[in-house]
Amino acid sequence: MNDKPQVIRDTDDDARRQARILLRGSRFAAIGVIDPETGFPFVSRVLLGMDTDGAAVILVSNLSAHTTALLADPRASLLTGEPGKGDPLAHPRLTLQCTAESVDRESDIHQRLRTRFLARHPKSQLYIDFPDFRFFRLRPERASLNGGFGRAYHLSSADFLIPEINHDLFENEAQLLLELGVRHPDLATRIATRLYGAAEGEWRVSAIDSQGLDLVFKDLLIRHELVTPVTNATDLLLELPKSVYAVP
Amino acid sequence: MNDKPQVIRDTDDDARRQARILLRGSRFAAIGVIDPETGFPFVSRVLLGMDTDGAAVILVSNLSAHTTALLADPRASLLTGEPGKGDPLAHPRLTLQCTAESVDRESDIHQRLRTRFLARHPKSQLYIDFPDFRFFRLRPERASLNGGFGRAYHLSSADFLIPEINHDLFENEAQLLLELGVRHPDLATRIATRLYGAAEGEWRVSAIDSQGLDLVFKDLLIRHELVTPVTNATDLLLELPKSVYAVP
Repeated sequence: MNDKPQVIRDTDDDARRQARILLRGSRFAAIGVIDPETGFPFVSRVLLGMDTDGAAVILVSNLSAHTTALLADPRASLLTGEPGKGDPLAHPRLTLQCTAESVDRESDIHQRLRTRFLARHPKSQLYIDFPDFRFFRLRPERASLNGGFGRAYHLSSADFLIPEINHDLFENEAQLLLELGVRHPDLATRIATRLYGAAEGEWRVSAIDSQGLDLVFKDLLIRHELVTPVTNATDLLLELPKSVYAVP
Repeated sequence: MNDKPQVIRDTDDDARRQARILLRGSRFAAIGVIDPETGFPFVSRVLLGMDTDGAAVILVSNLSAHTTALLADPRASLLTGEPGKGDPLAHPRLTLQCTAESVDRESDIHQRLRTRFLARHPKSQLYIDFPDFRFFRLRPERASLNGGFGRAYHLSSADFLIPEINHDLFENEAQLLLELGVRHPDLATRIATRLYGAAEGEWRVSAIDSQGLDLVFKDLLIRHELVTPVTNATDLLLELPKSVYAVP
């Protein structure tokens, strides 16, 4: 009747949201590729960015083993969701399987990814323009969410894609972020501190899309995933809880 | 003359020692396996143990995706070395490629691994004897050490193996640990606090071999790797710095 092992639960919206946050809210990931010389898996660490359509993004040197591997075989896997203290297996984590697309350094896509990656990882400016560095987009194919003991879910590529239909409304993301900063200068800090209990600091919105906001401060990153996706920036502000606007 | 990329340094004893500590001192790892259905890599998280010969050890459920994958294809990779605060790529990490050997639950090997795994991960007693759980030994084949920006090294299987010649002298490990606890009750805490700056606590030696000691306290693990390997327990004690014996 059902060929899924009993430990796999039916995927619901809460699981999808948790999975998206685990991917989109991670500064780095373990990436698994296939070693072209031996066929063995090869797992290393990469900084993680995101594209506007929900693809994960990595910035890598041509000298690194994972770059050589991805050019030979685009099949890859990401593990995100870092354990804190206590039992490492009690912390939620996500295994994503994805297909890598090498990005031409002279393309518009490269420029878009470069802008977003710098906003998320300001320190990458030290090497982002080195001639041997390039981006890969990692298109989600399927995933496994492990929400802690006994809470496992399967997810599909659609669960991670930000539909193209909304792209136009967010296409001038840099302009939108600028306006947001002018009109609501404390918004990022309020979301971080009031909704996520983060420490006070100069939080800023580093990226924006129809499904949420990325907030950064120093080496911290918070993905605020909306409950209901929106199609324009005004609606996005309306989707935020009132508590982030109210003066305490 | 040399076909290694310029970023790979010549492997020296310091690099070997750092690589061993990154593997042997890790409580958990990202494991990459090959998904038998799709051929994609699949990266997930596992608790890590060690066998007396230097093989890594994992305890997994038959229901998990990595177990199915390893039974179909024993080629695997481990990533160890967790980043702390700051730039994740500034922290040393180790990529190990290894071959998985399934361990028969009725074997002596299973008993040895069970004793060692429990000493390292006491909370695993909750599920270690579940009928669907089993150990795999992961035999090191080769590895890449990334000691931080620009500090990359290649390592061989021999760099991770604890030679068989020393096994006999340490074969009754449980007895040795018992004697050590009676004769030097504060040794583990002294090593942890004086050599590694760890917080005071009821540290204990959870494993011992010719190349070092594993120290555990709650959810913390320290691998003390000797500079010079020894062939018996007396020499091991002599290899420890005097400061761990002296009364402060």
